Amino acid sequence: MNNEILVVISDGSEEMEAVIVIDILRRASLNVIVAGTSDVVNCSRNIKIVPDKQINDIDENEIFSAIILPGGLQGVTNLLKSANLHKILINNNRNNSIIAAVCAAPIILKEWDLIPSDCKITSYPSVKNQLDNYNYSDEKVIVCNNIITSRAAGTTFDFAFKLVEQLKDLETSNKIKNDILFTN
Amino acid sequence: MNNEILVVISDGSEEMEAVIVIDILRRASLNVIVAGTSDVVNCSRNIKIVPDKQINDIDENEIFSAIILPGGLQGVTNLLKSANLHKILINNNRNNSIIAAVCAAPIILKEWDLIPSDCKITSYPSVKNQLDNYNYSDEKVIVCNNIITSRAAGTTFDFAFKLVEQLKDLETSNKIKNDILFTN
Repeated sequence: MNNEILVVISDGSEEMEAVIVIDILRRASLNVIVAGTSDVVNCSRNIKIVPDKQINDIDENEIFSAIILPGGLQGVTNLLKSANLHKILINNNRNNSIIAAVCAAPIILKEWDLIPSDCKITSYPSVKNQLDNYNYSDEKVIVCNNIITSRAAGTTFDFAFKLVEQLKDLETSNKIKNDILFTN
Repeated sequence: MNNEILVVISDGSEEMEAVIVIDILRRASLNVIVAGTSDVVNCSRNIKIVPDKQINDIDENEIFSAIILPGGLQGVTNLLKSANLHKILINNNRNNSIIAAVCAAPIILKEWDLIPSDCKITSYPSVKNQLDNYNYSDEKVIVCNNIITSRAAGTTFDFAFKLVEQLKDLETSNKIKNDILFTN
């Protein structure tokens, strides 16, 4: 396993969900790589982000500390078209890397069969009916084995802080909450 | 006055503060222009954003509905070097456009003398001592005439929703809070 965390984005990805996670994890001194499906990614509200790397340039056998999937329904649809992302996620899930998805992105976990059948998960409410084979809950963030899910842009700070707790420690998470005056 | 809202960014701008505001205002169907000081802006945690327009290409006499200044200390330092932004802000303040600043960005309002002396303002705590000529408060968001200030990345959702209330209405703001499952 390398010490890198992969955040993947595509046209239509929800930019708040991507940017809050990337920023908070980098504040925790974690090594975040933003990987995209194009040189410039046009997010759901037309914010244009230049990724650090192309998803297609990543070796499918590379094992990351975590792979994080932001939502945005069109972004999720586009990410599901990436054969290389599919292979990377299968390999990383097999190696127990953290796989984290927010909003509509738990659909990717379902489509590619990455969720253990006994796992409790959450998602954006509108895609709940596509996940009703699982133990579903309305909690803001749920950790189940290596799978972490969350609900929406409005829960993404909670999602990011939970990732810092898991990938670093609670003290670092609390320090960043304090630095950015986050209260919830 | 046009119906456009200008969000300005430069290298070192805080990407969460920029992206949350742009995204929430666009969800409110407001016409947001992201203006930068370079073709690709490298934000404070190395997220690279392609602005819609260059600040230098904006006519200094153009009057916007609002001009919004994200924080990030290096971003604020860089924005203060923009002679054109200075002229745009002076002209827009004179026309009572909303001028809004979060985190370290209230320093720009002070340096360019945009805050009426009786106005209550806030900012990131570390720059409070540079603003002690004003009526300073620790509230998350403060509206004083056309000047709106807020404190940090962790108060930026509140800042963005207050901007939607001012530029549109409370109902739209509450609808977006509901859509993104924001509770605070």
